Amino acid sequence: MTDRREFLQSAMAGAAGLSITNLSLAKSILGNAITADDFASIKSEIDKRHDESLNRLQNWIKLPSVAAENRNMNEGCQLMMDMLKEAGFQTIRKMPTDGHPGVFATLDSGAPKTVGLYFMYDVKQFDPKEWSSPPLDAAILDRPNVGKILMGRGAVNQKGPEATFLAALHAIRGAGKKLPVNLVFVAEGEEEIGSPHFGQVVHQPEVLEAFRKSIGVYMPSASQDLDGTVMTTYGAKGVIELELVSSGTKWGRGPAKDVHSSNKARLDSPAWHLVEALATLVTPDGQDPAIDHFADKARPISDAERKMIATAARRLNEATAKKSLGAQHWLHDASFEESLQLLCSRPTVNIEGLVAGYTGPGGKTILPGRAVAKMDLRLVPDMTAKEAAEALKAHLAKRGFGDIEVNVTGGYDPTSTPVDSLISRAEKSVCGRAGIEPIELPRTAGSWPGYLFTGDPLKLPASHFGLGHGSGAHAPDEYYVIESANPKVRGMDGAALSHVEYLYELAAMS
Amino acid sequence: MTDRREFLQSAMAGAAGLSITNLSLAKSILGNAITADDFASIKSEIDKRHDESLNRLQNWIKLPSVAAENRNMNEGCQLMMDMLKEAGFQTIRKMPTDGHPGVFATLDSGAPKTVGLYFMYDVKQFDPKEWSSPPLDAAILDRPNVGKILMGRGAVNQKGPEATFLAALHAIRGAGKKLPVNLVFVAEGEEEIGSPHFGQVVHQPEVLEAFRKSIGVYMPSASQDLDGTVMTTYGAKGVIELELVSSGTKWGRGPAKDVHSSNKARLDSPAWHLVEALATLVTPDGQDPAIDHFADKARPISDAERKMIATAARRLNEATAKKSLGAQHWLHDASFEESLQLLCSRPTVNIEGLVAGYTGPGGKTILPGRAVAKMDLRLVPDMTAKEAAEALKAHLAKRGFGDIEVNVTGGYDPTSTPVDSLISRAEKSVCGRAGIEPIELPRTAGSWPGYLFTGDPLKLPASHFGLGHGSGAHAPDEYYVIESANPKVRGMDGAALSHVEYLYELAAMS
Repeated sequence: MTDRREFLQSAMAGAAGLSITNLSLAKSILGNAITADDFASIKSEIDKRHDESLNRLQNWIKLPSVAAENRNMNEGCQLMMDMLKEAGFQTIRKMPTDGHPGVFATLDSGAPKTVGLYFMYDVKQFDPKEWSSPPLDAAILDRPNVGKILMGRGAVNQKGPEATFLAALHAIRGAGKKLPVNLVFVAEGEEEIGSPHFGQVVHQPEVLEAFRKSIGVYMPSASQDLDGTVMTTYGAKGVIELELVSSGTKWGRGPAKDVHSSNKARLDSPAWHLVEALATLVTPDGQDPAIDHFADKARPISDAERKMIATAARRLNEATAKKSLGAQHWLHDASFEESLQLLCSRPTVNIEGLVAGYTGPGGKTILPGRAVAKMDLRLVPDMTAKEAAEALKAHLAKRGFGDIEVNVTGGYDPTSTPVDSLISRAEKSVCGRAGIEPIELPRTAGSWPGYLFTGDPLKLPASHFGLGHGSGAHAPDEYYVIESANPKVRGMDGAALSHVEYLYELAAMS
Repeated sequence: MTDRREFLQSAMAGAAGLSITNLSLAKSILGNAITADDFASIKSEIDKRHDESLNRLQNWIKLPSVAAENRNMNEGCQLMMDMLKEAGFQTIRKMPTDGHPGVFATLDSGAPKTVGLYFMYDVKQFDPKEWSSPPLDAAILDRPNVGKILMGRGAVNQKGPEATFLAALHAIRGAGKKLPVNLVFVAEGEEEIGSPHFGQVVHQPEVLEAFRKSIGVYMPSASQDLDGTVMTTYGAKGVIELELVSSGTKWGRGPAKDVHSSNKARLDSPAWHLVEALATLVTPDGQDPAIDHFADKARPISDAERKMIATAARRLNEATAKKSLGAQHWLHDASFEESLQLLCSRPTVNIEGLVAGYTGPGGKTILPGRAVAKMDLRLVPDMTAKEAAEALKAHLAKRGFGDIEVNVTGGYDPTSTPVDSLISRAEKSVCGRAGIEPIELPRTAGSWPGYLFTGDPLKLPASHFGLGHGSGAHAPDEYYVIESANPKVRGMDGAALSHVEYLYELAAMS
């Protein structure tokens, strides 16, 4: 479900190229937390452990945990715990939930600061037939102008970046250094099905207690675009995913099963019933939400956010963005800047899929007994997933569509993190030394379950961090760059180094 | 496409049982056209040739011609011609069309009257996995309370009844008798895809000339329900089958492909565009046609038709009909009699299927670039298929949906045949002697391409005839009764005898 990554890739498409300075890091001074020599020795340890780190990632990809298919869930959880142990975590606990288990772990290095981490050990479903290299082979391939890539399910979402973070921990320890911060860690195995039970992990008293000591939480990511650009966002929309099901059985009208279409003359149609219900959910042009009270609490964008978007609009390339989406016009013929405002600030009511009756080639003369719309609703602060589902149900009931089932399959609240938090400032700092000025947006239009950290009761900053590049999350041929052909883009080792820098930066910054 | 059969089966469900008298036919007097002895010798010839007739049907089923899959079309056409030759037709011509070929044949027995026949040599697609006996095995199975059945694709729609008619011709000739009527014959191989080129066969000058000499046209059918009931209809609704396709490409708005659903905030949605367009095609309750001018020419039912329906309503069983459809209420809470009026008289706008975006289990956060509604529109006299498609296109264009493609995949005009035509009176007469009083309806709500005979320029009566029973047209486990367990229902030999009777009746009646 976390689709923050897909959003960022479509948003960044065609970002204006940046002049990136020399990546030499040995001479950088990371506050007072590390000497240049110590940093060089960690870097050399990363290089030395390249094969070990790559093998760890490949082994992980070869064990896919897919929550939707109840596949390898306990095995994946165990492997996650084993890897944490090897990386130096001291307490590691499997956290049972009403669904698949999560993991809670801590690493106390006696440092003054504690940093929170969020991992997922599950991956999205995949169909090997659609891949050019088997999705569980984790094969290393040469891709012209990109470099050596690892192709496999989870390569970028999220095993690659997570294994890269673990490589950073191994390198720091291998170089004989103590971690500059303490770590508190939670992982879940249901991220790809909307994190339905992750709250049961985070809200355990001992987990809350441990995270309360942290300065903020981040998830390792590969945040660079193919040209080296990084986009930073200060939050994410919330989402609920659901099916609307209209059936003769539930309705009590129309047929209870598919019948010959000639009977339309004397029977109601659950498919038409669904179409009529759907039409009420949006404005008459079909494009804006019209669910009663759905967006009552939607917070308008602030002046500061508006300014941030204006700057981003200047740096992003509209033509490339449109091309990558196959779009000629933005909604309501908005300007590019307005389109980014829409993206950051508008709640949405989207049809993901329609399924009714005969769906094969040609036609079949039936009157279907059942019709389904698959939908996602995106939420902005201060809307909540719970209230959005309630608004939808009340809206339908009020209009005579109370028989239509609203089956919410997942979702969570929006999440926001302050622009000036340590975890965000440290990211800017690491990027800056790498010659990267991140493009900033108030929030992604995609979603991730950050609200569990940013919302009650923790109210922590929460974001993503990591240089490096990958693509194809949720799609065939997902990949992660191991060795980059473009000096502006980090390979796996360079990305591991970015995590080392980040940890020291977090330790050093005030 | 011909779905007249499915309609009849759902309409007849639970017809009041009839007292059927002794089937002994030898003593019947078929006008002056045949003596009882001659009739008995033909009957004995049918019995003698039972295996030969059954083998002919089985061989036919083993060669499925499926127009939608371009499968065995020339082979199926050739087999049709070979069977006509064996049955005594004198001129047999393959009739090329812009699609798959038809067949035109004649049998001149020097009789005063000429009768037209309509055959199809194609069958509906099938998925062997769904069948309890392989659909091309044409296996003979025992079915409790039904008898020995032949299971296979085409068993009842329409190879079984057609092969039964051919068996009647063989028996008459085998008994040394001359056919009491001359025959003119046309067949098509595209019936199951909506007969798109059958007009090119019928409208050939030599075919028109031959058919102009006929008293009417019929297609062999197995018209008995499981309890022996026969339903007679005096026409059929017309139909157009089509896909409405909304796409970003054609629209010029929204994405040209599936993109991440977060982009709904800044992009139009072709799926919502389709939903809004669909909602305009029906009344606000979703259940009656609202396409501008669609039904302008719809002819209301006459008083005579109303009376006929009232009688049928008394003989049919409402509870059984509802049960077979899984329905609790008729459209608009109509009474049973009103529901039959709707069925016979109302044009319909039906959704056969909806297909957009992600259609698998669970959800997928995409904004689809394309959405499709599969539809069928049923037409009553004096509507035409051409005008219906034009009305739909004009309706959409007028409301800003002109970009939505209207891809008509097949269809034809309504067909009506007089109650007092020779072919209808002869059916009643044959049924009457068998103790069957057919239930009559003004028209079926299903469709068949009878308009090519009943419309310009031929304006002939056209209907179906044949005792016997089968079921499962277009569905798995399609069957045709070879030996009937119920004395009120004819097996294949008894059905062949009904065709003999019918031909002599047609010859004798004035």
